Amino acid sequence: MAKDNLTAILYGINDIRLEQTPIEEPAEDEVLLQMGCVGICGSDVHYLVNGRIGDFVVREPMIIGHESSGVVVKLGKNVKNLKVGDRVAIEPGVSCRMCKFCKGGRYNLCKEMVFCATPPVHGSLRRFYKHAADFCFKLPDNVTLAEGALLEPLSVGVHACKRANIGIGSKVLILGAGPIGLVSLLVAKAMGASKVVIMDLSQNRLDLAKKLGADAILLTTKEDKESKTAEKVIELLGEEPDATIDACGAQSMIRLAILVTKSGGVAVLVGMGAPEVQIPLMNALVREVDIRGVFRYANDYGDALDLLTSKKIDVKPLITHNYKLEETVQAFETSKSGQDNVVKVMIHCN
Amino acid sequence: MAKDNLTAILYGINDIRLEQTPIEEPAEDEVLLQMGCVGICGSDVHYLVNGRIGDFVVREPMIIGHESSGVVVKLGKNVKNLKVGDRVAIEPGVSCRMCKFCKGGRYNLCKEMVFCATPPVHGSLRRFYKHAADFCFKLPDNVTLAEGALLEPLSVGVHACKRANIGIGSKVLILGAGPIGLVSLLVAKAMGASKVVIMDLSQNRLDLAKKLGADAILLTTKEDKESKTAEKVIELLGEEPDATIDACGAQSMIRLAILVTKSGGVAVLVGMGAPEVQIPLMNALVREVDIRGVFRYANDYGDALDLLTSKKIDVKPLITHNYKLEETVQAFETSKSGQDNVVKVMIHCN
Amino acid sequence: MAKDNLTAILYGINDIRLEQTPIEEPAEDEVLLQMGCVGICGSDVHYLVNGRIGDFVVREPMIIGHESSGVVVKLGKNVKNLKVGDRVAIEPGVSCRMCKFCKGGRYNLCKEMVFCATPPVHGSLRRFYKHAADFCFKLPDNVTLAEGALLEPLSVGVHACKRANIGIGSKVLILGAGPIGLVSLLVAKAMGASKVVIMDLSQNRLDLAKKLGADAILLTTKEDKESKTAEKVIELLGEEPDATIDACGAQSMIRLAILVTKSGGVAVLVGMGAPEVQIPLMNALVREVDIRGVFRYANDYGDALDLLTSKKIDVKPLITHNYKLEETVQAFETSKSGQDNVVKVMIHCN
Amino acid sequence: MAKDNLTAILYGINDIRLEQTPIEEPAEDEVLLQMGCVGICGSDVHYLVNGRIGDFVVREPMIIGHESSGVVVKLGKNVKNLKVGDRVAIEPGVSCRMCKFCKGGRYNLCKEMVFCATPPVHGSLRRFYKHAADFCFKLPDNVTLAEGALLEPLSVGVHACKRANIGIGSKVLILGAGPIGLVSLLVAKAMGASKVVIMDLSQNRLDLAKKLGADAILLTTKEDKESKTAEKVIELLGEEPDATIDACGAQSMIRLAILVTKSGGVAVLVGMGAPEVQIPLMNALVREVDIRGVFRYANDYGDALDLLTSKKIDVKPLITHNYKLEETVQAFETSKSGQDNVVKVMIHCN
Repeated sequence: MAKDNLTAILYGINDIRLEQTPIEEPAEDEVLLQMGCVGICGSDVHYLVNGRIGDFVVREPMIIGHESSGVVVKLGKNVKNLKVGDRVAIEPGVSCRMCKFCKGGRYNLCKEMVFCATPPVHGSLRRFYKHAADFCFKLPDNVTLAEGALLEPLSVGVHACKRANIGIGSKVLILGAGPIGLVSLLVAKAMGASKVVIMDLSQNRLDLAKKLGADAILLTTKEDKESKTAEKVIELLGEEPDATIDACGAQSMIRLAILVTKSGGVAVLVGMGAPEVQIPLMNALVREVDIRGVFRYANDYGDALDLLTSKKIDVKPLITHNYKLEETVQAFETSKSGQDNVVKVMIHCN
Repeated sequence: MAKDNLTAILYGINDIRLEQTPIEEPAEDEVLLQMGCVGICGSDVHYLVNGRIGDFVVREPMIIGHESSGVVVKLGKNVKNLKVGDRVAIEPGVSCRMCKFCKGGRYNLCKEMVFCATPPVHGSLRRFYKHAADFCFKLPDNVTLAEGALLEPLSVGVHACKRANIGIGSKVLILGAGPIGLVSLLVAKAMGASKVVIMDLSQNRLDLAKKLGADAILLTTKEDKESKTAEKVIELLGEEPDATIDACGAQSMIRLAILVTKSGGVAVLVGMGAPEVQIPLMNALVREVDIRGVFRYANDYGDALDLLTSKKIDVKPLITHNYKLEETVQAFETSKSGQDNVVKVMIHCN
Repeated sequence: MAKDNLTAILYGINDIRLEQTPIEEPAEDEVLLQMGCVGICGSDVHYLVNGRIGDFVVREPMIIGHESSGVVVKLGKNVKNLKVGDRVAIEPGVSCRMCKFCKGGRYNLCKEMVFCATPPVHGSLRRFYKHAADFCFKLPDNVTLAEGALLEPLSVGVHACKRANIGIGSKVLILGAGPIGLVSLLVAKAMGASKVVIMDLSQNRLDLAKKLGADAILLTTKEDKESKTAEKVIELLGEEPDATIDACGAQSMIRLAILVTKSGGVAVLVGMGAPEVQIPLMNALVREVDIRGVFRYANDYGDALDLLTSKKIDVKPLITHNYKLEETVQAFETSKSGQDNVVKVMIHCN
Repeated sequence: MAKDNLTAILYGINDIRLEQTPIEEPAEDEVLLQMGCVGICGSDVHYLVNGRIGDFVVREPMIIGHESSGVVVKLGKNVKNLKVGDRVAIEPGVSCRMCKFCKGGRYNLCKEMVFCATPPVHGSLRRFYKHAADFCFKLPDNVTLAEGALLEPLSVGVHACKRANIGIGSKVLILGAGPIGLVSLLVAKAMGASKVVIMDLSQNRLDLAKKLGADAILLTTKEDKESKTAEKVIELLGEEPDATIDACGAQSMIRLAILVTKSGGVAVLVGMGAPEVQIPLMNALVREVDIRGVFRYANDYGDALDLLTSKKIDVKPLITHNYKLEETVQAFETSKSGQDNVVKVMIHCN
């Protein structure tokens, strides 16, 4: 086995370093993986720039990376679902398997969750990484390792669209055309949504959304009045949305989600924003518009993979930039630039 | 048939007058009712004091009253589900029966709803009143007309507890021990909730809650810090509530509902408050605490009646004051006094 | 208005006659329609051949036809959702709007249902026909009257797939490639099913299924052993189906549905068959395979129409034969021939 | 630690022997328990009498017992949820925690389930027994070890009533007044069912059901015609049942469940019977009566315990006979006698 285990370590704010680390030995229910691809997520950039996300603070050097895929190179002794050579997507959070949340099907809420690159847990941006075998999903031949890494954001979209009750006939509004907004668009269409409108501040991103299947796009500015914007959305959809998915987190977007969603519909919130917001909650109350958050995913990776395997959706256009592991610092520079031609930056570890 | 049709008409702010009005003829799907009891609701008082609730403005004199029961005295020609002499509870809103909401089982969201004593629709506080027969629920012998009138707030409690997913094993927090908080308590227990804590500013109301079956009560003040209050709730329940039902509408209570509810749980909002609130929404998002409003009820009257018929709950202790129709003005005075020994004021029309 | 109202009347077994009938006047909530297309359903043929379906017996001459569309030519005085000239699909059952089923969102179970061409209610195969306006669905320009008529079987497929909990990632088995099996296939794919296998006795029908998007087809014979067939299904799907939709009604198919469906999955039964069957029910019990019937549809027409409007599915290939109203007897001859190149026979009324 | 580990071993048909076995050492996530009570289940008797249940055959001597409780005497090194001295109820099946069923909240369907006293897995009828700590539920002071053992059948009742969608207003029919029928009755009432009718061949058992809260009882014979019996049920309930729970497994009872349940309702099957049955399935299909099996329980033990802790139900009257561990053979004799005064036989291990 190779001894090179180049690893991307976040030492502190704006301080990522590439260093060698020991290759770990898989435990009995784990596999050792030669890493394939690792995508950069907004949360990775957030840790890089701010050193923390809410109560999660990078106090010790932490290996970064959690949107990833790899090839099995060694099996723990109890592993039966995989074999050496299997290409897999890695669901990055390993839950305790014993609490009410885990047993009840909502393991994303497990308080003992061990999640890649969430302090103090190390991530997967290295040459070799070990992971629980049952949280690795074997990729069929027609799905690439890069697509495998994209299963992570795609699973967020799957979780969001399930929480939004999207089905045939649904009219959907998506706020934000970044990676999460775009995967939500893809999933909503795959679930049978009859019309999806997506809104953003960037024409570039909206053009990509259009290419990916949005039925209509809506360019907005920070100055637009919410009532006007709501009117435009309704005009484009032909009616109020049954579900609105906010992939931004901005107060103005949460407000819009509440105001514009159809009575009895659902406003799903995926985008993280300020801890406190001022919103027209009574409007939601009297129209029974449910407000539901989305925290990662649970039991969604398999469905996300099925979408790729069956070619129902194509996530490859989301990858706008590719780098080698050795170019990690540059990859993060690109990702944090915030330019609107940057959607998903993918790092190839091998 | 009697010609006396004394009727309580709201002419404007603090101006209720008792006058004779013509007895109406039931249409083919309606029944004429000799009114039994009419309870006074917070919304009635709100119209009396403010002349409006949000966009609903009392522009013309409006007959007040919507929590009511009566005796069938005449049948429209198509009515088969009732006969003359039947004692009935009156579900006060008649929906259009034709829109998506009506056909889909959520008729409370019908935009063509005709709802008693919501401007410009007249209410039922009169000697005689006609109503759609299928929105009248026959009372069995062991349920009084006063209880029949209480089916209205009770149905709100039923709707709230259904929206809160309450079942066996549920730990429940109820905010506010007014009529809606109290009926929610009764229903939650009937649905199998293993522990219900109820909170209020008034010891009097909490004493009644205790008598009605609350497992624990929590006296609070407007100065209490939300984190402290949350701790007390958790101490009393033994864990975080699976569901919190806010029957107040105050921003502080909505905040508490979000903060204290268990991950994956539900914060149900029944109490109306200020149109805009500032809340810690990200806390709900990352813990997938769903926020659901409750607007009246749909398909709940029958279940509420079953609770009374089967003697699973007793709503009679909620009635703290009784008046005759002739004493309507005084009844409203009592209701609007805000004294904490006033829970439900009942007017007897006959 | 034209006075010609040629009408197809079923007088008894194998006795359909074309006669003039009076054009009816729409009631206040109805519209008068100049009929466009009427498809022939298996149930129509069943009445023609047997004079009855179960307890529904053709005792008096009955106008036939219930899969239909038309153009609004006159409005009842309360009608607001349509205007003269609108092209509409006709949902053929009008429910009572007042019972628990109607108010609860399951109006297909209404005991007072008035359903076209179910004795003693007359059907719609005539030049002019009146119908409840809220059960007429306006067709957009890109949907033809023939497609509008096909909304009826398509809505059965929508109802079946909803009852089957089909979503992204679903592996689905459909038993029977007749009209209902085929529309179920189309809807399952539109809902995101990742793999659909369809089985039939006819290669012709399977070829059509393949063309319509089946991921795999399975030709079977009446002699095939159920265990063998189950193995083949699992091989084709790669695993057991999450949902099986039986569109046949044969005992052997119901047995297969139970045996082959994944633990925790759903066997949905749409096809009508013998009143009594012998089935391996304990197998379903210990694996919690739910068995759910499908009776027509409720709140499904709108979703079915959305599928056509948004071009997510194409039902036109189901129409294998077209006739004029004057050729109704011949149209029924074709339909009842049972030849496997006959899928849907469409009658054009104008 | 005591060295006595008297153990009840099933050697073959009608051959239970008491022998010493080694006390096992708990693994890191396990606890060692000094056993308290073990109830005898119908399945235990079935293994004793027939040596098998379906495909599960007693090929090697097997320790019997799975309805049990005990006291923690030793902790595995990772155990945090329990401490030495805790009295616990034992959920007897330990699932794999890794498959789709386990992660999805339906671990009772796990194909790798290790379930006490289901061949070849040993049971818990011994002085000392070790078990996964997270499948042990700490009993509060007001719940006895005998009640703790009864959590097992009670959890079946909880699972059945959840599968039956029982809630306030439900009218329920329960077929069979054995232990499972009786616990289903208790749970249904606790969930808010407004009326429960229970049916049995034994007046003795029905008397107990009445005492436990049945609203009506119905004595039947094997000769009664199903249509007559259905009429009687409807007369007693006042309407058709919304849910029927079959706790017998007899074909005649499954038939009745289908025929008598309200359209849109649920027939829940808990009782095991012959592998094949002849049933009027079309009747269920056209009325959308869902048929759902119940296999053990999942996520139900906690709710069942809450019912006991909160004193919502009392299961103690189910225990009709008590024996010491040394009297195990006699205890099984009593249990298999089939006399109708025998409901639950409890063995005290200490």
